[in-house]
Amino acid sequence: MKAIAVQRGSEGPTVVEKPRPTPNEGEALLRTLRVGVDGTDHEVIGGSHGGFPEGEDHVVLGHEAVAVVADANGTDLDEGDVVVPTVRRPPAEGTNDYFERGEPDMAPEGEYVERGIVGEHGYMAEFFTSPPEYLVSIPEDRWEVGFLVEPISITEKAMEHAYASRSAFEWTPESALVLGNRSLGLITLAMLEYGVDSDRSFAAHDFERTYCLGRRERPDPTVDIIDEIGATYVNSNETPLETVPETYESMDFVYEATGYAPHAFETVEALSPNGVGALLGIPDSWEFEVDGGRIHNELVLHNKALVGTVNSHVKHFEGAVDTLDELPDWLLADLVTTVATPDDVAPAFEYGDDQIKAVVEFDRL
Amino acid sequence: MKAIAVQRGSEGPTVVEKPRPTPNEGEALLRTLRVGVDGTDHEVIGGSHGGFPEGEDHVVLGHEAVAVVADANGTDLDEGDVVVPTVRRPPAEGTNDYFERGEPDMAPEGEYVERGIVGEHGYMAEFFTSPPEYLVSIPEDRWEVGFLVEPISITEKAMEHAYASRSAFEWTPESALVLGNRSLGLITLAMLEYGVDSDRSFAAHDFERTYCLGRRERPDPTVDIIDEIGATYVNSNETPLETVPETYESMDFVYEATGYAPHAFETVEALSPNGVGALLGIPDSWEFEVDGGRIHNELVLHNKALVGTVNSHVKHFEGAVDTLDELPDWLLADLVTTVATPDDVAPAFEYGDDQIKAVVEFDRL
Repeated sequence: MKAIAVQRGSEGPTVVEKPRPTPNEGEALLRTLRVGVDGTDHEVIGGSHGGFPEGEDHVVLGHEAVAVVADANGTDLDEGDVVVPTVRRPPAEGTNDYFERGEPDMAPEGEYVERGIVGEHGYMAEFFTSPPEYLVSIPEDRWEVGFLVEPISITEKAMEHAYASRSAFEWTPESALVLGNRSLGLITLAMLEYGVDSDRSFAAHDFERTYCLGRRERPDPTVDIIDEIGATYVNSNETPLETVPETYESMDFVYEATGYAPHAFETVEALSPNGVGALLGIPDSWEFEVDGGRIHNELVLHNKALVGTVNSHVKHFEGAVDTLDELPDWLLADLVTTVATPDDVAPAFEYGDDQIKAVVEFDRL
Repeated sequence: MKAIAVQRGSEGPTVVEKPRPTPNEGEALLRTLRVGVDGTDHEVIGGSHGGFPEGEDHVVLGHEAVAVVADANGTDLDEGDVVVPTVRRPPAEGTNDYFERGEPDMAPEGEYVERGIVGEHGYMAEFFTSPPEYLVSIPEDRWEVGFLVEPISITEKAMEHAYASRSAFEWTPESALVLGNRSLGLITLAMLEYGVDSDRSFAAHDFERTYCLGRRERPDPTVDIIDEIGATYVNSNETPLETVPETYESMDFVYEATGYAPHAFETVEALSPNGVGALLGIPDSWEFEVDGGRIHNELVLHNKALVGTVNSHVKHFEGAVDTLDELPDWLLADLVTTVATPDDVAPAFEYGDDQIKAVVEFDRL
């Protein structure tokens, strides 16, 4: 079967031929439909994040997948079920408390592998195998956008942790700012603007005023989406983050999805009293000057919080399935700008100004 | 009556003569027993924090008080009740949502005054008045240490907010580090080491291993207390915060009570995965260099959080009354090193190496 991998010593992703996997006992065989590409894939390709599986000279990419059960293999899945796989798996040494309690997203480095990212092959292949406990069912008619469940789940978790941090008092947030206008930023912006009131989703609040900060100049397709969502686009070339409170307002909630380290610190001053910043970017080491006294003082005197969050678990994927169902069709259609195939995969890995979300389509339902 | 105040243009606190206050309707008259001195008082004296009441040329100091009801004045208090007053009061414009919902500690600047700190006279006077809703009863036999309820309540709130921030997953903290070995640090260290399992207290967890970082060299009375508590003293001259993880271990919980701004940032790297740092210090503006990329990365990849927290409300005071009851007598006795009187108040405001906690005693029960 065809798979898209990063090989040791070669630049960029390549299509490799691998044997179709045989499911072990307790695993199902999945036929891949679509796999999304995100910033983490680019980091894996560039070598700044992730790592090869033990003893391998390549890693199959892809962690945002939607697939169909090809062989239930004795599990309680049904052939034809459309599913989305989670990303973390136990390390080679076996399971641990984090996996046992269903919270692999809270496992520290070394206590997990991540499919398509670190230590384990991903989903960019015609077939893959998985135990059923790492698969979440989605409605059949959402197969084309099912790969968005994984990124949505990332925000479900971030929202859950951010809200938890404000649960010791009556928090009534009204304004929210998303830092970053790539696909995760835009999806999150929509979640904050529309609210999502399912029982399982953690993004149940709809903010009265939403903003999205980016570096793009109009006309730009991401800015068009921000306008259409009804949010305010903040062009950071004109209005850098530190001037957002005076130009617009201070924010009850900030969601950082840029990986630009100064944003983690500027977030504190962009927040309203009692506000929280959720940090999701993964920058490299970088020394710079901050007014550490002012940041510290602001955190304390105004009861502010910063919450770092990574990955997500099954509960967040389940919330994300509901969220996906409530996001408007026009948004999902406008987000997916590139559908590549294994025969011509390059367009999925280009960073064009017109590209928002790219997927590789291995098969259709 | 005698009061201890900071006057415009004069250095240091002075004893002033003021008329005994007359309670308004709905207020009780309180006879002051003891009032503690803390770092905030020194900041008010130094002029770096707080402010005079509107139209006044002085502010009466003191926000850590214990008093006895002298005149219930029609409130449902009983004369002779021993009480501790909370600190925040509505501003001149009147009450607001934060006070209405019992969360004045979450009010932003301008929406409150603080007795003895900003905009309102404090409790360092022979008598003061207060509505009963800002008074918390304590057992009569705790009158000598009742002024510690206010600082304990600060930690009750910090613990509540820190735990809330970790409530979205199963958090099982074992190690805790207190930054700062003044009285608040030592009280907090004892709360973390002994745990306090009352229904109302938020400091219900006893940590398996506790540490306290300070700058003092042995022999020192605060280090003696740390030893006696059973915690590990970390001398920051030998082991600065950034080397604590390699020298001892990384910490599930860090409580910052130094006001030393670099500690807010070094806390992130001192934390274990999924750990939380509660920040309580109030530094001035100060620019310095940080490895912002590494701090940001650590927050995200290890799901860490920083929670700033200030002040406390009635619920925290009630928890603190229970906590006070569970702290060992030797600790309370060793903490209170200085008992000054209004006739010779200077010793209460000195920062001697032998001084841990100073109080001004206006009267005895």
